[in-house]
Amino acid sequence: MSIAIVAPFKEVSDWVRTFQKLDPSLKLEVYPDIARPEEVETVVVWQHPHGILMEYPNLRLICSMGSGVDHIVADPNLPEGVPVTRIVDPRLTYSMTNYVIMGILNYHRQFTRYQEYKISRTWDMSDPEIDVSVGVMGTGQLGGDVLDKLKAIGIPAFGYGNSPKPEFRHPYFYGDQLDTFLEKVNVVVCLLPLTEKTEGFLNKDLFSRFTPGTYLINVARGKHLIEEDLMEALSEGWVSGALLDVFRQEPLPENHPFWNHPKIMITPHIACITMYEAAVPQILDNHRRRRGNQPLSNQIDVNQGY
Amino acid sequence: MSIAIVAPFKEVSDWVRTFQKLDPSLKLEVYPDIARPEEVETVVVWQHPHGILMEYPNLRLICSMGSGVDHIVADPNLPEGVPVTRIVDPRLTYSMTNYVIMGILNYHRQFTRYQEYKISRTWDMSDPEIDVSVGVMGTGQLGGDVLDKLKAIGIPAFGYGNSPKPEFRHPYFYGDQLDTFLEKVNVVVCLLPLTEKTEGFLNKDLFSRFTPGTYLINVARGKHLIEEDLMEALSEGWVSGALLDVFRQEPLPENHPFWNHPKIMITPHIACITMYEAAVPQILDNHRRRRGNQPLSNQIDVNQGY
Repeated sequence: MSIAIVAPFKEVSDWVRTFQKLDPSLKLEVYPDIARPEEVETVVVWQHPHGILMEYPNLRLICSMGSGVDHIVADPNLPEGVPVTRIVDPRLTYSMTNYVIMGILNYHRQFTRYQEYKISRTWDMSDPEIDVSVGVMGTGQLGGDVLDKLKAIGIPAFGYGNSPKPEFRHPYFYGDQLDTFLEKVNVVVCLLPLTEKTEGFLNKDLFSRFTPGTYLINVARGKHLIEEDLMEALSEGWVSGALLDVFRQEPLPENHPFWNHPKIMITPHIACITMYEAAVPQILDNHRRRRGNQPLSNQIDVNQGY
Repeated sequence: MSIAIVAPFKEVSDWVRTFQKLDPSLKLEVYPDIARPEEVETVVVWQHPHGILMEYPNLRLICSMGSGVDHIVADPNLPEGVPVTRIVDPRLTYSMTNYVIMGILNYHRQFTRYQEYKISRTWDMSDPEIDVSVGVMGTGQLGGDVLDKLKAIGIPAFGYGNSPKPEFRHPYFYGDQLDTFLEKVNVVVCLLPLTEKTEGFLNKDLFSRFTPGTYLINVARGKHLIEEDLMEALSEGWVSGALLDVFRQEPLPENHPFWNHPKIMITPHIACITMYEAAVPQILDNHRRRRGNQPLSNQIDVNQGY
């Protein structure tokens, strides 16, 4: 039996090397060069071609190469009953949370304005900060950690999600409590999972309900955002600026209007990186657990999409 | 008896208004228009002309308008035995700590590089972060808070100061343990008090002992830094970049070489602001305590200088 890596758009040589180092006896194949599809027991996937997993008749485990699984559950021909796992990496959470706090503090302490002042050699001490109150949409592993850290440094923060969470450790709103949530915050961080319900959630309707001048940080998925609606929200003043790490099309096309928008800051999908050093041991561990019919780590609910 | 504000370089109208609002019966005068020097019981000072305080024969209290007191203790003709107080404002600590963490995270997550990429429309996902370990020089109220918050968000951090602190709640080095401290860190934050010992402490000798490529943040006083030495340290690679909020001459002169140095980021002394709304009640409270011979809040030791 073998493990197959199916990630046609990803450079996987570091992954292959790490698998081989950790288990030299492992039979590992990389799509599209799968010699014996019937031997594939575990697939390690990132943006696999939809339908392809049906070609492995003895598939018993699907492992995402990252924390996101939307690229897996979006496949309408996903083999039924095969468990799906994701990567949970404390280092990855650390990177993501630090990125988000950086974005919040740059807005709070007006870093970008001072960079403009530097260019024009302007010494202007007026209005040195904007009070911030942060709303985190999506309160799973990553959103929860952002809320923990914001609380620890004394920045007011509130969570918002799809379903009630009576035991949640932070002030939390859900469902149709959206307006109550939005009026409490002037920075919105999107860390939602990408599902049918949340795709396009960052749209004109939402922006028009923001506290005027809210700052937006999207570190989840490009498809959460209706990009034209953000342009409109910026010109209407519903949104005062945005820090975006993810986009509908990546790399962001060179002629995209975001590139030279003065109120949009762009990073090239680096807020959260999957480090193969951390991911490969987790995948090997789940592969062995599955063979031994033991409970898996970080298994997701395919129907919920996260 | 009266309170006198002696801050010739500061716009004090907001201070005067706030004093009058909080105590309409207060006799308040503003230097240089002090009609009756013998009535001055409390002075509220910022960069007062040295020697001037000797002109108030019945002076009983000297209040700094900010958290710094170096501008007071630097006066060689300070009336002996008159207590000196500073402002301690949780909001001011909050602003300062947020500023410092912003600077650290911008270096850690390479914000400035991505801004250059934005201008050139470059999508480059390589090397998205630099591991940081932070050294905080000066572990008083402000430095201690920075260390607390860094620990809370999981960033390794170490304190350094002048004297032993066996009970200190963070890893701490002092005196000639400087090299041991410096080899543990690649970001150095200066939050030292300005004293005879610390003036010019950020100099060539110190920089040459840094872990090569250390990032420097100075939010204390401009006189801590030998400015030419920083230029040399940047070209030698001892220092990889600097975020400076304070300067020898403020406003920073328009022809100063820092303005267009690509590795130096400048803010106009806004990391920590004294908010008169918070400071005036503290000063009035100490004024009343002094009259009632009660213990003062936030009194400093004039001989130590902090």
